[in-house]
Amino acid sequence: MNLRYLTAGESHGKALTGILEGMPAGLELSEEYINQQLKRRQLGYGRSERMKIESDRVNILSGVRFGKTLGSPITFVIENKDWENWKETMSISPADSDIEKVTIPRPGHADFAGTIKYRHNDIRNVLERSSARETAVRVAVGSAARRLLEEFKIFIVSHVIQIKNVRGTLSLKNIDLKEINVLADKSSVRCLDKKVELRMMKVIDDAKANGDSVGGIAEIIAGGLPIGLGSHVHWDRRLDGQIAQAMMSIPAIKGIEIGAGFQSASLSGSQMHDEIFYDDELKDSRKMSFYRKTNNAGGIEGGITNGEPIVVRIAMKPIPTLTIPLNSVDIFKKAPAKAHKERSDTCALPSAAVVAESVLALVIANAFLEKYGCDSIDEIKSHFLW
Amino acid sequence: MNLRYLTAGESHGKALTGILEGMPAGLELSEEYINQQLKRRQLGYGRSERMKIESDRVNILSGVRFGKTLGSPITFVIENKDWENWKETMSISPADSDIEKVTIPRPGHADFAGTIKYRHNDIRNVLERSSARETAVRVAVGSAARRLLEEFKIFIVSHVIQIKNVRGTLSLKNIDLKEINVLADKSSVRCLDKKVELRMMKVIDDAKANGDSVGGIAEIIAGGLPIGLGSHVHWDRRLDGQIAQAMMSIPAIKGIEIGAGFQSASLSGSQMHDEIFYDDELKDSRKMSFYRKTNNAGGIEGGITNGEPIVVRIAMKPIPTLTIPLNSVDIFKKAPAKAHKERSDTCALPSAAVVAESVLALVIANAFLEKYGCDSIDEIKSHFLW
Amino acid sequence: MNLRYLTAGESHGKALTGILEGMPAGLELSEEYINQQLKRRQLGYGRSERMKIESDRVNILSGVRFGKTLGSPITFVIENKDWENWKETMSISPADSDIEKVTIPRPGHADFAGTIKYRHNDIRNVLERSSARETAVRVAVGSAARRLLEEFKIFIVSHVIQIKNVRGTLSLKNIDLKEINVLADKSSVRCLDKKVELRMMKVIDDAKANGDSVGGIAEIIAGGLPIGLGSHVHWDRRLDGQIAQAMMSIPAIKGIEIGAGFQSASLSGSQMHDEIFYDDELKDSRKMSFYRKTNNAGGIEGGITNGEPIVVRIAMKPIPTLTIPLNSVDIFKKAPAKAHKERSDTCALPSAAVVAESVLALVIANAFLEKYGCDSIDEIKSHFLW
Amino acid sequence: MNLRYLTAGESHGKALTGILEGMPAGLELSEEYINQQLKRRQLGYGRSERMKIESDRVNILSGVRFGKTLGSPITFVIENKDWENWKETMSISPADSDIEKVTIPRPGHADFAGTIKYRHNDIRNVLERSSARETAVRVAVGSAARRLLEEFKIFIVSHVIQIKNVRGTLSLKNIDLKEINVLADKSSVRCLDKKVELRMMKVIDDAKANGDSVGGIAEIIAGGLPIGLGSHVHWDRRLDGQIAQAMMSIPAIKGIEIGAGFQSASLSGSQMHDEIFYDDELKDSRKMSFYRKTNNAGGIEGGITNGEPIVVRIAMKPIPTLTIPLNSVDIFKKAPAKAHKERSDTCALPSAAVVAESVLALVIANAFLEKYGCDSIDEIKSHFLW
Repeated sequence: MNLRYLTAGESHGKALTGILEGMPAGLELSEEYINQQLKRRQLGYGRSERMKIESDRVNILSGVRFGKTLGSPITFVIENKDWENWKETMSISPADSDIEKVTIPRPGHADFAGTIKYRHNDIRNVLERSSARETAVRVAVGSAARRLLEEFKIFIVSHVIQIKNVRGTLSLKNIDLKEINVLADKSSVRCLDKKVELRMMKVIDDAKANGDSVGGIAEIIAGGLPIGLGSHVHWDRRLDGQIAQAMMSIPAIKGIEIGAGFQSASLSGSQMHDEIFYDDELKDSRKMSFYRKTNNAGGIEGGITNGEPIVVRIAMKPIPTLTIPLNSVDIFKKAPAKAHKERSDTCALPSAAVVAESVLALVIANAFLEKYGCDSIDEIKSHFLW
Repeated sequence: MNLRYLTAGESHGKALTGILEGMPAGLELSEEYINQQLKRRQLGYGRSERMKIESDRVNILSGVRFGKTLGSPITFVIENKDWENWKETMSISPADSDIEKVTIPRPGHADFAGTIKYRHNDIRNVLERSSARETAVRVAVGSAARRLLEEFKIFIVSHVIQIKNVRGTLSLKNIDLKEINVLADKSSVRCLDKKVELRMMKVIDDAKANGDSVGGIAEIIAGGLPIGLGSHVHWDRRLDGQIAQAMMSIPAIKGIEIGAGFQSASLSGSQMHDEIFYDDELKDSRKMSFYRKTNNAGGIEGGITNGEPIVVRIAMKPIPTLTIPLNSVDIFKKAPAKAHKERSDTCALPSAAVVAESVLALVIANAFLEKYGCDSIDEIKSHFLW
Repeated sequence: MNLRYLTAGESHGKALTGILEGMPAGLELSEEYINQQLKRRQLGYGRSERMKIESDRVNILSGVRFGKTLGSPITFVIENKDWENWKETMSISPADSDIEKVTIPRPGHADFAGTIKYRHNDIRNVLERSSARETAVRVAVGSAARRLLEEFKIFIVSHVIQIKNVRGTLSLKNIDLKEINVLADKSSVRCLDKKVELRMMKVIDDAKANGDSVGGIAEIIAGGLPIGLGSHVHWDRRLDGQIAQAMMSIPAIKGIEIGAGFQSASLSGSQMHDEIFYDDELKDSRKMSFYRKTNNAGGIEGGITNGEPIVVRIAMKPIPTLTIPLNSVDIFKKAPAKAHKERSDTCALPSAAVVAESVLALVIANAFLEKYGCDSIDEIKSHFLW
Repeated sequence: MNLRYLTAGESHGKALTGILEGMPAGLELSEEYINQQLKRRQLGYGRSERMKIESDRVNILSGVRFGKTLGSPITFVIENKDWENWKETMSISPADSDIEKVTIPRPGHADFAGTIKYRHNDIRNVLERSSARETAVRVAVGSAARRLLEEFKIFIVSHVIQIKNVRGTLSLKNIDLKEINVLADKSSVRCLDKKVELRMMKVIDDAKANGDSVGGIAEIIAGGLPIGLGSHVHWDRRLDGQIAQAMMSIPAIKGIEIGAGFQSASLSGSQMHDEIFYDDELKDSRKMSFYRKTNNAGGIEGGITNGEPIVVRIAMKPIPTLTIPLNSVDIFKKAPAKAHKERSDTCALPSAAVVAESVLALVIANAFLEKYGCDSIDEIKSHFLW
């Protein structure tokens, strides 16, 4: 029972809320810091007009005093600025007037299965919660975890490497990993490879013009990690497994790989594994002077961090809400129909990459607190091997 | 708190043990049934000689009486038949004589990070637990889950689609999914595509001859599923996320994808999403007469089963134990050295596929019990919509 | 993973917040219903003046639409109506001016140990969270569980049986258990025994006059239960254990007993155990026509409900904040001092009894959903044996 | 996710098994150490003849090498030495011959509710698991936790203060708490008060002669604790709540109290609370030179250890298996009948006290690892403030 959190909130409801329990006391944390992360999530070419309405801002209701965490649960609230326009459709209390029901599920979304599972008579009762809007509060919660890791010089960054069939080829060899977000935040498609950036935007433009949508692949990297987070001793303590769940639980993610990932299937053992070297001169105590020349493992061996950067890639499917809708069925009348339309983005990959950073921060912070104790920053700093 | 399990045991220790808690009462379960699954895990071209020593057999110590589960925790024990040869090296009590320590980690294994994390002075203290040998008991535990699902006509199968760079191209269009294991179990590489089977074996032979190892890609499929397992309401209730963790926690797995997976990154929304149809004539009540013509979603939309088969693919890296060892470092003396050698397989993919079936069974069974209650098979059958 | 909840909020912070995850869809739930429970918590002779400021009202932010639950997480917010007076002392952001620190712990409170554990330099960083004010949101969360149970005709009530040394002697033999709250809610000390009610109030008056405080004993009863909630199969599935944790986690509770409780230590087996009878005429299907003439077990045998009412008693210590403070130490200066004073009640037992009802509702609802499934009220009703 | 464990096994099954996951590496642990604890559990006047058959001995199957923990899950097996006589009645596989069914539940046991819950047709399917025999393996598991705490000079002891209506009056004022078990282990009723010991034995003799049974009250004490285990920040992190669950989950326990417990209901605040003092000369760093003159709080304030000993009392009901059985009903035939007889003890309180020590050790060890990290004894020792 270290770090745990619950999120709540419907897309067009009053607010999104998250409670994060288990954060140590004495960590500097401000609404401004979190708002910067929320803003990063909202950037990106191909986001819908809603982004302009949103400009999310968090309100911390508890767990922080005078700019520092108290050790008690932290509440994050992101109000829906458009609530005035939705307060009848999403009324908490019984509605006076008739609100139109959604009856035709969008293929690829939770609409169909969710409505049947929960025996709803209105698909809106599902789509409001299954919307990727919920990830805004995951970013808020994850920002607290990120803040914790920063205190120990652990950083998490991301960039987009493919949108639809356009794939960047830039090597990260000569890039300071810590600086990736500085560069990626400046790109409207979060791509470091300037050669393909415009082509990526073109792909999004084309999709939008066709009432279609596109996905792609993003890479998330965590660096500055000590050796020894996660464990091989039990399947659910493996850090790679925990990362896989966190990533796959982001809406629209259909694949995840770590290090060489699917490519590792084609390599021989002698090509794959990262040989181990030692250099007394290396003064990075968290690596204990060991190093590798390659990182096909993606920073995790046996479910444990090995001191190299964690490298994760996620594949995002195109968003299932299309302006030119797909064939579907009215699930109550059982008659063929075109899928329900709901305002949506054309491409949400840059946003998903920031969400992925956030959930990765939560997984790593949890493992970190497990290893070093979880009461206060001062105490953890005295436990940590710098 | 539905289904939970702990596994224990070192590779060359006395025994592997698993306790499965939360299984309903009244389910038929026998050691023979589980032994068949254990045998399936041991098949496969490219397994080491150890497989012959092993011929794993489970011993049920609790939770079953007169061939039926009691509702109480079930204990599975798989004894190490080679214990006599290891009882000194792996002695529970302090050793009289000097046992040689392992000091040089194998790149790609938990050896390095695990030894540092737990401050061991002998890498054997890590490698014995991080060994894939542990998956034998995961298969035993998962067999109980599989047995539960069978009772409701839910099946789980697997086959190998790629070993190193040799990839099968067989379409499953004309194959009864339920029959896949009948076919795959007959292939020493678990491959349905007879055209590439021999080439796969050749790749393994070559690797073995070179003291090298190979991995590949396997596909795991679950069918007969009702609509509504898993949920969109909270990130950690999403079935795809739970599956991703379970899969990535199998040793040597570096990638996982569901449905179109990484391929979905390249598709447009209109290509990707599986349109929904209805046919009153379809008498499968668990699908409620809805159907799809495609299954790019891989059976899960919004984290919930949609009535179509779950399709998961996992990428396995080549096994990190090579006969011709890699460069490494004696982590205590801090001097360069060749990695420690430990008896191992050349290719463990067919085995990993069976392990993957087992952990998938556990994830699905857990969601199933959550939806239909978990006390007894009789009661669950009365709750289930056939 | 059935019902889980997190609460957050400091006593004088902006708001208390709770998120309840795992409630089935389709349950009628309104803010008014919860407000009635919040009001019941605030009643009681011997509460401080703060109760008048408070008059707690809940704001539901998510998980409910048109008066029914959605199956998604429900957010409850109770705003601090006195925030304006506390916004500097409890500021989220760094304070401009100097806010006086609390440095002298109150014996009996979390002040001392909490401040040392979390390495705070101001005891207020602990006392704001450890305050019993937090139980307001536990009542809100528990009200949703109570609402669920009501749907299946399960009720939870409470009454006070002792305040300080004044103990009621009324037998419940001739009282309809369902009606207890109707009676108890009318008593300012929640006591059904009219003969001692005035003496209880006198004890409170005396304590208040002396700057002192008093505790007592309350009894909480749940009725209408089906046979079979909880389980004997694993220690942490036992319902009595779960109830004990929930009760002991209410501030100031130092003892808990079920059925004959501590009295059972003095009985012989033949006196203690409730003999079992059967009467075909008994048409209560949830008891399956079995009955008992006694209920020394308090409704739970082997950790499982047996169809009789659950009867729990809790012992509450006098509140640790006294107007005439106790000896303590300035923990930073390490000098003797009189304990810090904080506005407080003289007797909070009637309030604690309502909190105890709420947490009992959560424990029972969780076990109920485990047995009957947890997706929607409609589905659960079809699973339940009426 | 720190310390977790599952236990398994039927009373007359092949074996009891426990897996403990989350123990740090490098802790000295031997079967002999655990066997001593198992023996302590088996002592006691009023135990049945079965104790002689049993003489429990643990077999460690995993997680320990050369006398030290590996950090991996530890398996404890206690074989049933009487298995040969039960192998047909408790056969894992379908039985050839007819085994007599148990059809009449014992009042006070899980028999009735368990059989209905799990829809069994033989009460033995419940009573074998609900038997207090299971606590043997809880003692084994708890011994590992006890061993961990010892390493940090934390000790846990117990003694019996009441059997039926015979209550000891000895004050612990002049007793070194650490020495309590040395004394109590020598008493066949675990009682320190020599004046009542013989009367306690007489009460047991009388009950046995009458075919009856008796319970009583035991006190469990943990000392040497640092300030700051457990937390006030969330209800389920409170150490008192966790202790209450662990205690109430021991079979036959009907009441639990901490410190002044139920007595605290009768005290005024000024009598109840333990004033705080400071003495620079006190060199016990884990108390940080603070001390109390009383311990009505029982070592826990606000859910957190305050440096004083934890003092818990549990009330045990008389064992529900009587030689002269109670009225009951054949639950399948629905006809009145005398309850089933099963070999049993007359008084199991001394044994339950040792079980209570063990589960308390698990709760405290878990909180300890949460605060100081959980990877290895060496690392924890460097984190701990001695």
